[in-house]
Order: sequence, then C-alpha cells, then structure tokens
Amino acid sequence: MKYSLAQYLASFLTKRRRELIDKVSSQRLLNLALILEDIHDPHNANAVLRSAEVIGIHRVFIIENRNRFALSPGVNLGAAKWLLIERFQELSVDNTELCFERVRKLGYRIYCSSVHHKALMLEDLPCDKPLALLFGSEKWGVSPKALSLCDGTFHIPMYGFTESFNISVSAAISLYTIARKMREEKKELSQEEKEEIRLFLLRRSLRRAELLEKRFYEEHKPSSLET
Amino acid sequence: MKYSLAQYLASFLTKRRRELIDKVSSQRLLNLALILEDIHDPHNANAVLRSAEVIGIHRVFIIENRNRFALSPGVNLGAAKWLLIERFQELSVDNTELCFERVRKLGYRIYCSSVHHKALMLEDLPCDKPLALLFGSEKWGVSPKALSLCDGTFHIPMYGFTESFNISVSAAISLYTIARKMREEKKELSQEEKEEIRLFLLRRSLRRAELLEKRFYEEHKPSSLET
Repeated sequence: MKYSLAQYLASFLTKRRRELIDKVSSQRLLNLALILEDIHDPHNANAVLRSAEVIGIHRVFIIENRNRFALSPGVNLGAAKWLLIERFQELSVDNTELCFERVRKLGYRIYCSSVHHKALMLEDLPCDKPLALLFGSEKWGVSPKALSLCDGTFHIPMYGFTESFNISVSAAISLYTIARKMREEKKELSQEEKEEIRLFLLRRSLRRAELLEKRFYEEHKPSSLET
Repeated sequence: MKYSLAQYLASFLTKRRRELIDKVSSQRLLNLALILEDIHDPHNANAVLRSAEVIGIHRVFIIENRNRFALSPGVNLGAAKWLLIERFQELSVDNTELCFERVRKLGYRIYCSSVHHKALMLEDLPCDKPLALLFGSEKWGVSPKALSLCDGTFHIPMYGFTESFNISVSAAISLYTIARKMREEKKELSQEEKEEIRLFLLRRSLRRAELLEKRFYEEHKPSSLET
C-alpha cells in the first residue's frame, strides 16, 4: 500500500525530480542522527541543518528548553524541508529527557559534543551501531542533564589558540567525519527503509501532498486495491 | 640570533603563555595553506579564519580583486592574529595571478574548491607535497583565472538536495580532512621552521613587540653578542 501511494505521488513530479528523489533516498544515512539542544542563533541553526542535509542525514531532533528554535526564512529554508525533524518544546517539562527517551527508543546511542569533559576524540566514536550526535547551546554548552544521561562525550581535536569551533563548523566536521566512516562500511539501507524515506521525500516535494494522499486513499479503498 | 630574540621576547610573557606558544608552534602545519579569493561576507571570512587557526594552519593568502576583505571587529578577531596572512589587493592588477606566483614560489600546489568542474574528491587530494586550498567568492565561485592557473579542482562529496555547503563549512571540512591526513603521516617540522613560527607567535603575543625588538637589537649589538 505504501509503495502504491509513493507511485501515485511520484506521478505528479517530473522524471528528473523523481530520479533525484530516488537517488537521495537511497543515499540517506539512518545510522547517524543529529540532536540540537537550545541553539539560539537562527543563522547557526539553519547552517547546521543545511550541512546535515548535504551530508545525507535523515533524522534530526531539536530540544527547546530555553530557546525556541527559529528556522529563519531565507535561502537556507530549503534544507530543513528535507529532514525528518522532531521537536521537543513542551512547557514545564525537561525536554532533554523526553528527547533522549525517544532517540533511544529508535535505537541510537547518544554522544554529546563537549570540550569540558573527558571526551573521546571524534575519530574514536563507535560507529558500529546507530549514533546520535548532540550539540548544545552556543552560550551554555551541553546541559548538565544531557551530560548525565548520554552514553559519552566527544570532541574535535584542536591545535590553535582559539578554543572552539563555531557550532555550525563543529557540527559539520563531526557529521561529515562520522558519515564518511559509516559510508565506507557500505551498510545498505533495507528496501523498507529506502521506501519509507522515499515516501517522506515525495510528500515533501509536493505542495498539496496531504490532499493528494487523501484522494489516493479514496480512490484506492482496500477492496479496489485487491482487484 | 633569532633564537636569542625569541628568548628575549618570551621573557615578557607568563610561563603559561610561553608553554602554550611552544605547544601551538610545534603543532602548526606548514604543508597546508589556505587561499581565499574575493570572499565578501565578513562573517564568513572570520569564521573561515577561526576554523583555520583551530585546525593548525599557519599560512593564509587573501586575494582581493573585487572585494576588500573585511576582518570584522568582534569575538573572532583573535583568530586572525595568530595566522600569517598575506593580502593581495593591488589596484588594476590581477591579484589572483600575483598570489599564485607567490604561493607557488613557497612550494605549494594549488587546488580550487569547485563543484562545477571535473573535480577530485576531497579525500583524493594529493597530500604528499605542500598543498594550498583555494575557496572562491560566495557569489561567483572561484574565478576563471584561478581555475585556469591552478593544479586542479576538488569537491566535497554531497548527498542531498541542497547543492552546496556554506563557504565557512566547506573550508572547515576540507582543511580538517586534509590536516588530519597530513598529521597521520607525522611529518615533523624542522627545528628552524618551529623556531620561525615560534618567533612569529611571540611577536603576535606582545603589544609592543616592535619596540621590544628594537631595544633587543640595541642592547645586543653583534659585538656584545660575541662576548
């Protein structure tokens, strides 16, 4: 059924667009996810999402305890559209905890970017199982809650006087390095995973995807699908 | 003589500062240089310099044919201070050509970041000889002149819908990846190179380095050095 819906949605797109979606969906990395905790500068936020999309990330989790995550309108808006973003922004609740529960349920181990703690070198992060990398606020860094709950911390080796990278640079270098390592292992997505991502990207490609989807289900009721 | 001057300048710094300078100067990469051509956004320019400094780059070349390179005042100013920056900004002259001459004279091969041409993958760049990576304007990309003069082009592999990284991200990923590869080969700097970089960093650490240097040469005239 999912596949038929995908075919239906794809029929509204140009051949070139369909091919691009096929290509991108087959190259998405499910084993690497991104968590952003209380990023406050929309310029940074959007730069990180842009990098993540180019690198081939699919899943992004956004924790908003202190700051609302503002997706700035402008040139970069496009990138966020292609990412499966889940936001944790409930009031009077520890959204870091909620997010961690969700991310762990999906099977990821969580490592926080941190220079302050006894951290692994980026290159030594364990890549054999699904991995979610968390980047904290520009101002306060990773929260104590995240540090206490995570599986470990990591840092990018640094050799200068300047004591840190900009957050968008730090996230890009980290995601790029780990993504490359994972791609080298050539672990293919399952057919089901590919189809799921493809359907997601098809939906995001059509302005009225919901309407079309509704129409599809009306036209293809279970009985008619069996014939 | 150079060494004595370094000792003299170092005597005006705290022990901690001296140790930091020793550490940083011994970890600088001379085999990897950065060229920026007509970057117009000071935010980007400073972000690139900050990344370069953290990664351990020493030499930076800035070509200003169309745009004056503005080092914005602010938090990032610190990073530029620690880099040996040469600017090419003459009027009515092709500064790209001038810069290439200079960079080649120093022994570097020059590769331009470019998605448009038949480019090497970043990871396939030849790292066995000194390498300078050039990044072009956000608006126009690398100039035709640079493309015609360079030793080759390279690009970062991309897997998404978004067709490019932000320039500061692109430069950071490229420099980080190549620097890591070069560091793995553990090619040590010569004693002379280390001392040269150390003297440079000592000078940059003192507000009145020139004055002190003048005083040093007055106090240590050749004859008095011999005693």
